[in-house]
Amino acid sequence: MDLIFLGTSSGTPTKARNVSGVALLEDQGKGWYLVDCGEGTQHQLLHTPLTLHGLRAVFITHVHGDHCYGLPGLLASAGMARRQEPLEIIAPKAIEGWIRATLEMSQSWLPYELQFHATEALDGWSSSQMRVEATALSHRVPSWGYSFTETRPDPSLDIDKLDRDGIPRGPLWGELMHGRDVAFEGRTLLSEDYLLFNRAPRRVVIAGDNDRPELLRDACQGAQLLVHEATYTQAIAEAGKADFGHSTAAQVATFAASVKLPHLVLTHFSARYQGASSRGLSIEDIREEAAGHFGANLILAEDLLRISLDKHGQLQRVEGMNSTRAKHH
Amino acid sequence: MDLIFLGTSSGTPTKARNVSGVALLEDQGKGWYLVDCGEGTQHQLLHTPLTLHGLRAVFITHVHGDHCYGLPGLLASAGMARRQEPLEIIAPKAIEGWIRATLEMSQSWLPYELQFHATEALDGWSSSQMRVEATALSHRVPSWGYSFTETRPDPSLDIDKLDRDGIPRGPLWGELMHGRDVAFEGRTLLSEDYLLFNRAPRRVVIAGDNDRPELLRDACQGAQLLVHEATYTQAIAEAGKADFGHSTAAQVATFAASVKLPHLVLTHFSARYQGASSRGLSIEDIREEAAGHFGANLILAEDLLRISLDKHGQLQRVEGMNSTRAKHH
Repeated sequence: MDLIFLGTSSGTPTKARNVSGVALLEDQGKGWYLVDCGEGTQHQLLHTPLTLHGLRAVFITHVHGDHCYGLPGLLASAGMARRQEPLEIIAPKAIEGWIRATLEMSQSWLPYELQFHATEALDGWSSSQMRVEATALSHRVPSWGYSFTETRPDPSLDIDKLDRDGIPRGPLWGELMHGRDVAFEGRTLLSEDYLLFNRAPRRVVIAGDNDRPELLRDACQGAQLLVHEATYTQAIAEAGKADFGHSTAAQVATFAASVKLPHLVLTHFSARYQGASSRGLSIEDIREEAAGHFGANLILAEDLLRISLDKHGQLQRVEGMNSTRAKHH
Repeated sequence: MDLIFLGTSSGTPTKARNVSGVALLEDQGKGWYLVDCGEGTQHQLLHTPLTLHGLRAVFITHVHGDHCYGLPGLLASAGMARRQEPLEIIAPKAIEGWIRATLEMSQSWLPYELQFHATEALDGWSSSQMRVEATALSHRVPSWGYSFTETRPDPSLDIDKLDRDGIPRGPLWGELMHGRDVAFEGRTLLSEDYLLFNRAPRRVVIAGDNDRPELLRDACQGAQLLVHEATYTQAIAEAGKADFGHSTAAQVATFAASVKLPHLVLTHFSARYQGASSRGLSIEDIREEAAGHFGANLILAEDLLRISLDKHGQLQRVEGMNSTRAKHH
C-alpha cells in the first residue's frame, strides 16, 4: 500500500504545494484510489506513474473548493483518454448535483458512467482489495475521514475445509483463491468461507478537515497510519490568526500518541508556512510542535512524496518516483 | 501592452502546457485582463508578476471546461487574498449560473462582488484604458473572440479648446488629462472632449476556439496582433483524426496573411504535438505549415511566454520574467 501526496497546501496553492489530493495505490497492478481532488490534481498526476484508467474510485472528504474543484477537469480528461469503465465517486451528496451540472454546463459528455454514493448514507464500500469506511469529523461543513482496510491479506486456501466439504481440487479452487464465488452442484460457494488470512490487514486512515482528531479514535484501532491535517501551530491558533475548524500540530500529535499509532503523516499546511530557509514562519515549526507530543514515526507531507507501507506495517519513503518531475505546480 | 500565455494546450494539460488562459497587461501599474481560465490558471499566475488584486476583468470565450474550469478556484483564491474590489466577468451567460452554483455548493463566500455581463448581449465593454468588443466565432458551442483596443493612446490636452471654452489652467486640466470628467460652473466637462491622441491605438484580438478564422476579418482591421488557436495541421484534419470545430495552422495563417496582420500568435495545440525533439508529431509541424502561408512575424505560444507590443506596433519577447519558474505544470 503506497501513498502519493498530490497536494499538501490548505485553501490555496503555493509555488511548492498544490491543494488537497492523496492517492492510495494497490499492491499490484495499476489500481489506485483518490482521496480529495483539489484544482490541479490532474496536473500533479502527470508527474506520477498513475493513470486515469487505473483509478478505482474517488473519495471526497467535504465540499470546500480546495478539496473538490479539480474533479470536473479530472473526469473530463479521463473521458478524453477514452476511459470506459464506470467510475465510483463517494462524496457528500451536494457533489453529485454539482458535478452533473458542471459537465452539462460545459457540454462535456463522458464515455463512461459516474456512480455516486453519498457519504452521508455510506454503509462502507468495497473493491476486490479494499474495504472503506467513513467517519464523520468536525469542521465548518460536514467532513469525513476514510479508512482503507485490506480485505484479503495474504490469503491461502483452507484445504481441510475444502476436503471436508467435498470440493474437488482443480479450477474451482483457483477461483475461490482469487476471491471469486463459484457455483458447484447447485449451490454457491463463497470464496470467503474457504480462505485463511495469514496476517492482520493493513489499515490507513485519511482524514478530511477536522478540529477534533479524537473523533477518529475508533477508526484508528488497528491502523498503522493516519494522514491528518495540521493547518497551523498552537501559537497561531492561540493568537486568533487562524480560520476555525482546523487542527493544530499539537492536537493531532497528542491524539496519535494516545492511540499508539506507529506512523503519522501531517498535511494541509497553511500557506503562511514556507520552506525551512524562509525568514517567516517555517514548516519546521509544525514539525517541532508535533514531535513534542508524538514520539513515533512523524512525516510532514510534501507534494509528490511517495511512501510505502509494507505487509509488516513498516513505512518507508520511495525515492526517485519521477526524477524529471517539477515539484512546483 | 504585454501578453503572458498561461496555458497553450488544447483540451487537457500536458507536462509542458496547461489548458487555456492569456493575460493582457496594462502599460502602467498592476492592472491586467484575463482571457479564459482553464483549470490551473491560478497556479500559473504564481510564476508571473500578476496578482489577483490587479485583475480588472475576466473574459471567457466559451463554456468548454478547458477554458473555464479554473475560474471557481481563482475567484476563491482572490477572496482568500482579501480582494475587495468588484470583479467583472464577461462570459457566455451559462457561466454565471454555474459560478454562483459552484460557490454556493462549496460554501465559498467572496468578500467582493462579481458583476457578470453575458457575452451574447455584450455591446462592448470599457475600462479606463481599454475598450473590448466581442466577435461571434464558429465552434461546437457558441464561442467568441475579444478585441482589446487602447482608449487613450498618448493623450495630450487640447489647449486651444480649453482656452476657447474658458476653462482655467489648474487642477481641472489635470483631471481632464487623466481621463476624468469634471464639474465646472454647473456643467460637466467630458475628458474626451479636451484630449488629443497622438497615435493610432494598439489593438489585439484574442480568439476562442473557432473553425472559421475569416469571421475575424472586421475585428482584425487596425489590429497589430491576433492570438488564435491552431489545434492541429492540415494533415491531421484531412486524415479525419481531429475533433471538429477547430482551425488548422494553414487556415489561420492564410487568413492572417489576407488581412495583412503584422504579428500572429498560434496557441491551443493538441496534446499530440510534443517538443521538437520528440519522435512523434512535433510542434514544429505546426510552425512549418503556418510559415508556408504567413510571411510576417509568426510566434508559437508556450506556457509563460511573455511578449510586449510597443506603442509603435513592434513586438518582442520579454525574457527572464521569472527565472525560477517551473515551466512544467
